[in-house]
Amino acid sequence: MKITLIGAGNLATNLAFALVEAGHELRQIYSRTDASARELAEKTGVEAFTSQIPAINKDSDVYIVSITDKALNEIAPQLVEGRELALWLHTAGSMPMDVFGCRRRGVLYPMQTFSKQKRVSFRAIPIFIETAEAEDLKLVKALAQSLSDSVYELSSQDRPYLHLAAVFCCNFANHCSTLAARLLEKHGIPFNVMLPLIDETTKKLHTLPPLEAQTGPASRGDENVMNKHLQILESEGEQTLSKIYRLMSQSIQQSASAPETK
Amino acid sequence: MKITLIGAGNLATNLAFALVEAGHELRQIYSRTDASARELAEKTGVEAFTSQIPAINKDSDVYIVSITDKALNEIAPQLVEGRELALWLHTAGSMPMDVFGCRRRGVLYPMQTFSKQKRVSFRAIPIFIETAEAEDLKLVKALAQSLSDSVYELSSQDRPYLHLAAVFCCNFANHCSTLAARLLEKHGIPFNVMLPLIDETTKKLHTLPPLEAQTGPASRGDENVMNKHLQILESEGEQTLSKIYRLMSQSIQQSASAPETK
Repeated sequence: MKITLIGAGNLATNLAFALVEAGHELRQIYSRTDASARELAEKTGVEAFTSQIPAINKDSDVYIVSITDKALNEIAPQLVEGRELALWLHTAGSMPMDVFGCRRRGVLYPMQTFSKQKRVSFRAIPIFIETAEAEDLKLVKALAQSLSDSVYELSSQDRPYLHLAAVFCCNFANHCSTLAARLLEKHGIPFNVMLPLIDETTKKLHTLPPLEAQTGPASRGDENVMNKHLQILESEGEQTLSKIYRLMSQSIQQSASAPETK
Repeated sequence: MKITLIGAGNLATNLAFALVEAGHELRQIYSRTDASARELAEKTGVEAFTSQIPAINKDSDVYIVSITDKALNEIAPQLVEGRELALWLHTAGSMPMDVFGCRRRGVLYPMQTFSKQKRVSFRAIPIFIETAEAEDLKLVKALAQSLSDSVYELSSQDRPYLHLAAVFCCNFANHCSTLAARLLEKHGIPFNVMLPLIDETTKKLHTLPPLEAQTGPASRGDENVMNKHLQILESEGEQTLSKIYRLMSQSIQQSASAPETK
């Protein structure tokens, strides 16, 4: 499959490596700046790169667009122009496939947290796919399966819920660690001592639903501890942490008293 | 070492197994109810159990108290009475060791999320210890090292910060998954699809500081996506989730713009 990749960010970088490793012909990489397009092309051994939309090649089978939602909205029409017969895919969790004005459009959304500094193996990453045309679904499924062992079909209507859930599970959970690291740093305790706890918190979710895995002062209604923690945060001038502590504790107690209906 | 365990909750249960496995003589288990004391004694092969404080044996070397902070405050004097010469330890992250009015007092705080339903290996759990008497420190260190490979000394003054950080890293992070599971359930998407993402979120923390590992719409300033997510939460009547989404996103953006001072 001849593929052109539009984007050179965290996701695009990891995807480029995965595509090359899966044996696809990655013909060209486009990025807003020449420097980032060149950097990714060199790292992945791709020969052509550009930062000019008119210079994007016209003969690929598939164009995969992996850029911010804002940029996708802005440049999708220019990208498609003159390349209307190809299949256009984006990788965004919260954008409809109709952002491409052409007939052959779809989505290939690998749900993972990507950083340029850390390469991840695509094989275990769930990929959620969708196409406008039934005949393209086979193609996208084959492409997704060449990268990952977990491929699911999911509509543009349902995908935003998945993406929103991912923000909670990943982005917000990670931020909890950032806040913890800040507290520890102030008191000279290395963040690394938290890793066994964080590892086990995650491991539990493989055997218990998160509501049952919940522990801590809020879940056992330990007002003494909660008040002490709030006093600490306020005496340290940590207003935002104090607000987060209050809100999360309330929400934990609400969830415990009104468990999900099955 | 002859040990009596006071408590039969999540932490006490896991600790009882670890003590027995490490070859200590666990002489008796006390719990508020006979049923829970019996249950844990039977599971761990301990012969004596009681729910009456006066019936707690008087000849153990060490008494380990693993109950809620509230209960610890309330019953510590009765527990110690008539057993003043023994060494008294509690396992709480946010209580000072002085809750025991006797001379030989200390703390053995295993920092982990414990559930009765899921046994964990103690060897990788960091244990934070403290004693009032210098000569007891050796004893507690030996006891802690018989359970875990990671034993640290930490004062009653610093321990609350560690415990508070653990609430963020573990309890609040887990609650983010509970909220995600609720959203997914409403739309018929199984929570299991989140596991590779959650695993990777945790794995990244072994190689990147949490601030650098941060990804997602808030960290890249993607207002389009954030507004869409807030619309979804509000149209679903999820007021608490909407508040959490706003507050966490603001906090992510604050952290990114004012990184920790080294």
